[in-house]
Amino acid sequence: MTQGTTSDRHSFVEEVEVRGHIIDSLILPRILDCVLQAGGSFNIKQIDIGHEKHDPSVAILEVRSATREGLDDILAQIGNHGAVPTTLEDCRLDIADMDGAFPEDFYSTTNQRTQVRLRGKWVDVQLQEMDCGIRVAAEQQPQCIPMVEVRQGMPIVVGHAGIRVYPSERPREQRSFEFMNSNVSTEKPKGVAVRNVADTLRRMKAEGKKSALVGGPAIVHTGSVEHVCWLIEHGYIHLLLAGNALATHDMERAMFGTSLGVDLDFGNPVEAGHEHHLRAINRIRRAGGIAAAVRQGILRSGIMYQCIQSGIPYLLAGSIRDDGPLPEVVTDVLEAQSQMRALVRDISFCLMIATTLHSVAVGNLLPAWVNVVCVDINPSTVIKLSDRGSFQTTGLVTDVEPFLRTLIRELESGGGQGA
Amino acid sequence: MTQGTTSDRHSFVEEVEVRGHIIDSLILPRILDCVLQAGGSFNIKQIDIGHEKHDPSVAILEVRSATREGLDDILAQIGNHGAVPTTLEDCRLDIADMDGAFPEDFYSTTNQRTQVRLRGKWVDVQLQEMDCGIRVAAEQQPQCIPMVEVRQGMPIVVGHAGIRVYPSERPREQRSFEFMNSNVSTEKPKGVAVRNVADTLRRMKAEGKKSALVGGPAIVHTGSVEHVCWLIEHGYIHLLLAGNALATHDMERAMFGTSLGVDLDFGNPVEAGHEHHLRAINRIRRAGGIAAAVRQGILRSGIMYQCIQSGIPYLLAGSIRDDGPLPEVVTDVLEAQSQMRALVRDISFCLMIATTLHSVAVGNLLPAWVNVVCVDINPSTVIKLSDRGSFQTTGLVTDVEPFLRTLIRELESGGGQGA
Amino acid sequence: MTQGTTSDRHSFVEEVEVRGHIIDSLILPRILDCVLQAGGSFNIKQIDIGHEKHDPSVAILEVRSATREGLDDILAQIGNHGAVPTTLEDCRLDIADMDGAFPEDFYSTTNQRTQVRLRGKWVDVQLQEMDCGIRVAAEQQPQCIPMVEVRQGMPIVVGHAGIRVYPSERPREQRSFEFMNSNVSTEKPKGVAVRNVADTLRRMKAEGKKSALVGGPAIVHTGSVEHVCWLIEHGYIHLLLAGNALATHDMERAMFGTSLGVDLDFGNPVEAGHEHHLRAINRIRRAGGIAAAVRQGILRSGIMYQCIQSGIPYLLAGSIRDDGPLPEVVTDVLEAQSQMRALVRDISFCLMIATTLHSVAVGNLLPAWVNVVCVDINPSTVIKLSDRGSFQTTGLVTDVEPFLRTLIRELESGGGQGA
Amino acid sequence: MTQGTTSDRHSFVEEVEVRGHIIDSLILPRILDCVLQAGGSFNIKQIDIGHEKHDPSVAILEVRSATREGLDDILAQIGNHGAVPTTLEDCRLDIADMDGAFPEDFYSTTNQRTQVRLRGKWVDVQLQEMDCGIRVAAEQQPQCIPMVEVRQGMPIVVGHAGIRVYPSERPREQRSFEFMNSNVSTEKPKGVAVRNVADTLRRMKAEGKKSALVGGPAIVHTGSVEHVCWLIEHGYIHLLLAGNALATHDMERAMFGTSLGVDLDFGNPVEAGHEHHLRAINRIRRAGGIAAAVRQGILRSGIMYQCIQSGIPYLLAGSIRDDGPLPEVVTDVLEAQSQMRALVRDISFCLMIATTLHSVAVGNLLPAWVNVVCVDINPSTVIKLSDRGSFQTTGLVTDVEPFLRTLIRELESGGGQGA
Repeated sequence: MTQGTTSDRHSFVEEVEVRGHIIDSLILPRILDCVLQAGGSFNIKQIDIGHEKHDPSVAILEVRSATREGLDDILAQIGNHGAVPTTLEDCRLDIADMDGAFPEDFYSTTNQRTQVRLRGKWVDVQLQEMDCGIRVAAEQQPQCIPMVEVRQGMPIVVGHAGIRVYPSERPREQRSFEFMNSNVSTEKPKGVAVRNVADTLRRMKAEGKKSALVGGPAIVHTGSVEHVCWLIEHGYIHLLLAGNALATHDMERAMFGTSLGVDLDFGNPVEAGHEHHLRAINRIRRAGGIAAAVRQGILRSGIMYQCIQSGIPYLLAGSIRDDGPLPEVVTDVLEAQSQMRALVRDISFCLMIATTLHSVAVGNLLPAWVNVVCVDINPSTVIKLSDRGSFQTTGLVTDVEPFLRTLIRELESGGGQGA
Repeated sequence: MTQGTTSDRHSFVEEVEVRGHIIDSLILPRILDCVLQAGGSFNIKQIDIGHEKHDPSVAILEVRSATREGLDDILAQIGNHGAVPTTLEDCRLDIADMDGAFPEDFYSTTNQRTQVRLRGKWVDVQLQEMDCGIRVAAEQQPQCIPMVEVRQGMPIVVGHAGIRVYPSERPREQRSFEFMNSNVSTEKPKGVAVRNVADTLRRMKAEGKKSALVGGPAIVHTGSVEHVCWLIEHGYIHLLLAGNALATHDMERAMFGTSLGVDLDFGNPVEAGHEHHLRAINRIRRAGGIAAAVRQGILRSGIMYQCIQSGIPYLLAGSIRDDGPLPEVVTDVLEAQSQMRALVRDISFCLMIATTLHSVAVGNLLPAWVNVVCVDINPSTVIKLSDRGSFQTTGLVTDVEPFLRTLIRELESGGGQGA
Repeated sequence: MTQGTTSDRHSFVEEVEVRGHIIDSLILPRILDCVLQAGGSFNIKQIDIGHEKHDPSVAILEVRSATREGLDDILAQIGNHGAVPTTLEDCRLDIADMDGAFPEDFYSTTNQRTQVRLRGKWVDVQLQEMDCGIRVAAEQQPQCIPMVEVRQGMPIVVGHAGIRVYPSERPREQRSFEFMNSNVSTEKPKGVAVRNVADTLRRMKAEGKKSALVGGPAIVHTGSVEHVCWLIEHGYIHLLLAGNALATHDMERAMFGTSLGVDLDFGNPVEAGHEHHLRAINRIRRAGGIAAAVRQGILRSGIMYQCIQSGIPYLLAGSIRDDGPLPEVVTDVLEAQSQMRALVRDISFCLMIATTLHSVAVGNLLPAWVNVVCVDINPSTVIKLSDRGSFQTTGLVTDVEPFLRTLIRELESGGGQGA
Repeated sequence: MTQGTTSDRHSFVEEVEVRGHIIDSLILPRILDCVLQAGGSFNIKQIDIGHEKHDPSVAILEVRSATREGLDDILAQIGNHGAVPTTLEDCRLDIADMDGAFPEDFYSTTNQRTQVRLRGKWVDVQLQEMDCGIRVAAEQQPQCIPMVEVRQGMPIVVGHAGIRVYPSERPREQRSFEFMNSNVSTEKPKGVAVRNVADTLRRMKAEGKKSALVGGPAIVHTGSVEHVCWLIEHGYIHLLLAGNALATHDMERAMFGTSLGVDLDFGNPVEAGHEHHLRAINRIRRAGGIAAAVRQGILRSGIMYQCIQSGIPYLLAGSIRDDGPLPEVVTDVLEAQSQMRALVRDISFCLMIATTLHSVAVGNLLPAWVNVVCVDINPSTVIKLSDRGSFQTTGLVTDVEPFLRTLIRELESGGGQGA
């Protein structure tokens, strides 16, 4: 297939290749759009489009621009969509000239699977995470590194040459969650969505993979503590990432039967109930922490109690609106990020419930291939999460308590496997 | 108890009495506030405050203003809060001078229990409804009448004299729903709320009282058709007020398995599915209506099918966004209002789900003593409903499908009574 | 370009052609996806992709399926995305066998430009509107017809043969509104959006094209009456589509200074203010209508006053929640649809503000090439509008009063043209 | 005024006095409600109700309960509403037995003006803040102290005796913001609200009082940077409390013209724009901080630049979702709270815009007499803030950019004073 003559001013040219479900995952359209928007032009030299469900496609394009810089820009942009120059070069490295900052021209990572070309070979980048740089060390594989952990003398990848990104593409059969992704409408069949989450949790458990819960205090306020305890006790949740508020109101409930002063059995605000959460924190601090309080019999039920009884790890990350806080809260946010980063490394599924802050924070740390379901009654939380780049997130606009109640019914009823 | 001397300029005075839970239902504070805001002053001549739960209170006030008109204004305003002059006069009547409009000075009704004084006796107003006038006919009791139904020559109540309004006040024990009323927070214990609704539906059924469902198409979109069918089949719902959209998508589901083109079993949009609702309407029109379609075996499941099988009345009120519409839709909105007015007359409880238009429309027709629970995932619907004056409405910000699913579980599990 | 051998079971085949910005408007990917989802397969026989901004592309596909019905289904679906069989046939007609309903197999229209093939020639369909059928009459051009207007004996298009749909595709330069379309995020630069609306209104005026305003009562509640009056007075708005509520509260404001009883100068609820809107309606009914009230000096300001002074048409469509209503309100919804249909026929731009009901109703009537901007502070209104198929709508999640205030500043400041 | 005989079982009795606008500020009704809800009874011994606008009222009640503990509970609860026993005792003190926790029975503070009785004299508590304890030191006035700052040996107030709380009550004339407080409806006249904020900012400036801005990154995303710069430059804002995100996107805008990768002049996402914020952070880290970047000419415009040029203090508090972060960010949340606490001490007005996290955090630190206006397009932010106890907050549901644009117009146009 030939194209008409190319504008004379477009004298800088590079041939790139794109592979995968490039038509129906919209990868090729996006790349062509990038080129045109950046003022370049293209010539499709070859295009082989798979015509059955599982057939991938491949396209070879000539990309042109009027200037060297323009062409580099285009290559950088389409590189993030998986277009790789056919004439290959190694990635370029620069030595960090100071602690805590990258060289000016550093390559900024996405959360998608990435390879860098080192000495002629494509090597997978480890610890994939968005908004990082890539550190290359002689003795080990290249890996993502947050800005704050850079030390003078580290070799850091710069520019866009020798980098290959694999944009997420799911074969049609595995798009179980996709439908809900299209927008954040509240008017979707909700039973289907809950069943999908149940199936995923069950599959994870059956396959020995780990699921994390990222949760906000509305879990307690809406009366969902026993549901979360059930999920932990029955081995569906293997990690809890939360903050001072969830833990505090969970223990307020255990000690006083209220959450933020509202009686959870009758739904009415209790006089002086606004003091309960502070008294709960005070008791835990007096006891020397949550685990100590469990040992001393001060704390006898609830999510934090269940975490300790079931032996699953939890991290309470600090925030500036924390009262107290509880002794376990990690009050330095960089330290909290670092601990979360280590904890999510072997997580395969992440359920985020009713927290914008923690959901965005954890979403930032996850590679694109970890499935995430974000449940919130407020559509804006879900919108915010995908605006921030966690595209693999399935938003589910629904109410926390009935969602969890139905989820557990689904898990109990089985489906033949799991539990 | 005496008060200091009153401002000389306040030479017009009237003594009023207020009875009921005037302190803790905030009736007295509101009345005093009215007087001061309107530029008047007051003197509390006597106040007897009930000091146990069931004791009502009574207060006698002297209300003063600088002008006759000012005093009348004040009396009109505080009359709506239940303050009645101790020196009594009959209500005043004016003869309607034309069809379809009240005399200029007509008394505008609230949805609260109201009495008018006729020939020295207090008489209950019938068909209580907000935003109406009061018609007095020789041979029958006074009754609320919508503007559009006024006919020349009817005697209509004007001014504020001789009118007594009984503001809603619930004894503390019956405030089961009240807690949720305080605001529209989504962060409330939801199980309690659902249990309250279940208890109410069960009590209505046990007492032989009727409950109505006012519903929007999101009932179908979210996959809740079978839940509503269950409620009708088991005798918890005795009237359905909806529009063309609910009925259409319900029948689209019955015929095609989709709602607005979305497959309800898998949650994905079906190609050409956007045509389904129109094809469903077309079939029903070809069959000659919903009941005819049931008889001919064209319609075999769903909410409309269940209404016909269970013999409960339904009204489909027209709106300008209707496709088709279905033959049963009442396309004239005044005729629809009139039919709804007749249908809700013996309703004791009203459950409004996922429709702003129909909820406000029905809310306008109900007297204040009919309990209303309005369920919507969008807080603004609930806010709008109470802004429009349906103060007896309990807002429940939650997701339709899980709400109904849980509601049915509650009803099935019994609680010892009902079902 | 050749593809591998096709599955033997796919023995029914048809060649189709697709033209336009088929890659970057995502038309081709959608068509290929349709084919695969429906269980078919395809072979791209030829593909010529435009490589500069203005170059259209063309593709010739062989589409295959295992059954005749399957192939027809696929052709029907991809036909809506603009794929037309290369071996052409005329569209098929069936005679309506009854009033008010289509033949069972009727072709259901979209709001996109459509042609039907009659006696070997492609003819434009008139009065393009979604969710209609197509009526073909001997003496005139084919045109969209709503179900309710069908009369026995009319020839109606059935099936999908001989129909060509032109999916909307905008050249890149004209995508001024597109960016906001991507989602309903509130976190977008709002000044840009308002400037775009101002530019469009100014361009319409300069070109002698007409703009319509579809508005809800929140225009009055938020204190925006004078802004709308300015737009009408200065010739930017040529048609008002609204309901009883907007007109009523507009006149309540003119007579009492309140809207729904809230003082618009001080923002506080006025005692007895809830009666104002009913008294306003009553006065207009007594006067014999809005125009009569203007003539009699009863109504001296506001939106309705301005419409009458400026001589622009308005339509007040009835709804079941209307109080009164005003004499001008068209209470039959089919009659209201019919009048709206006639009024929007020569509208080129439509600004929808703060009304879900009227926005969806008008959106249903507009062809896809009429630009629509929908302004609402509630994201769900905007989501609902595009869920209902008005894809050309640009959603702008912002606050009504400041939006209109800023819009007028933009229009006043000019930009060199218009005003 | 006498009441009937009191239930015999209520043998524990205490006389309390309540003063202020106890009827129309609803203080008395709330107190009576408390008593009854807690199972007690009351006898109103005397009630003098002010009958003109400025007259305060006073009531003397006998409160009864069946048990000593019950009575103490009631006294504790009604104490928070301003009821003080007429037979006075000093407050009780307990010595803190460990660092970082209060004695079990500590008095938990509100954000309202509070006095404790020491050696027979009522003394004002300093540093009033909710959810703290009260520390009494020999040499200085009693003051609120957060749990985490408690050191072994400090005398801490316990129980409820000898404590007097002054519930907020505003005379009618000063209720300028109150109307908006009633609920979070979006349908209010917005011009009035903006004018009120403008008047307050102008009055603060004229009186030499300080106003703080608490802001989120949506200020930058919506294109409002120049508005905030104007407010700082013209002396209306004297403190900025924000996080890494606002500062980062502000500097992304200054360096790249984008915010979160969206071009602020044209509203479209820029390719590779998602990297901009990280590159901006990297540059600031390389420069050694924001102030250094200004000195070096790297940062030449925007909010952070303006803060430095105008010499107003700012605090960037860390959160777990921070990228980078910027060198100035206080990453330990307790340290951040401590610095915020010191900074807000002399603030008289606080404008919170588009941030839930920072708004709640700062709201927690402010005494009830600091006026707060919280602006957000999402009603749930405003609801959350008042659920968390910041009752003095006026919620304004509107769009950030047009709000700030209009606010500045109001301030520029003057109103005769200020600026």
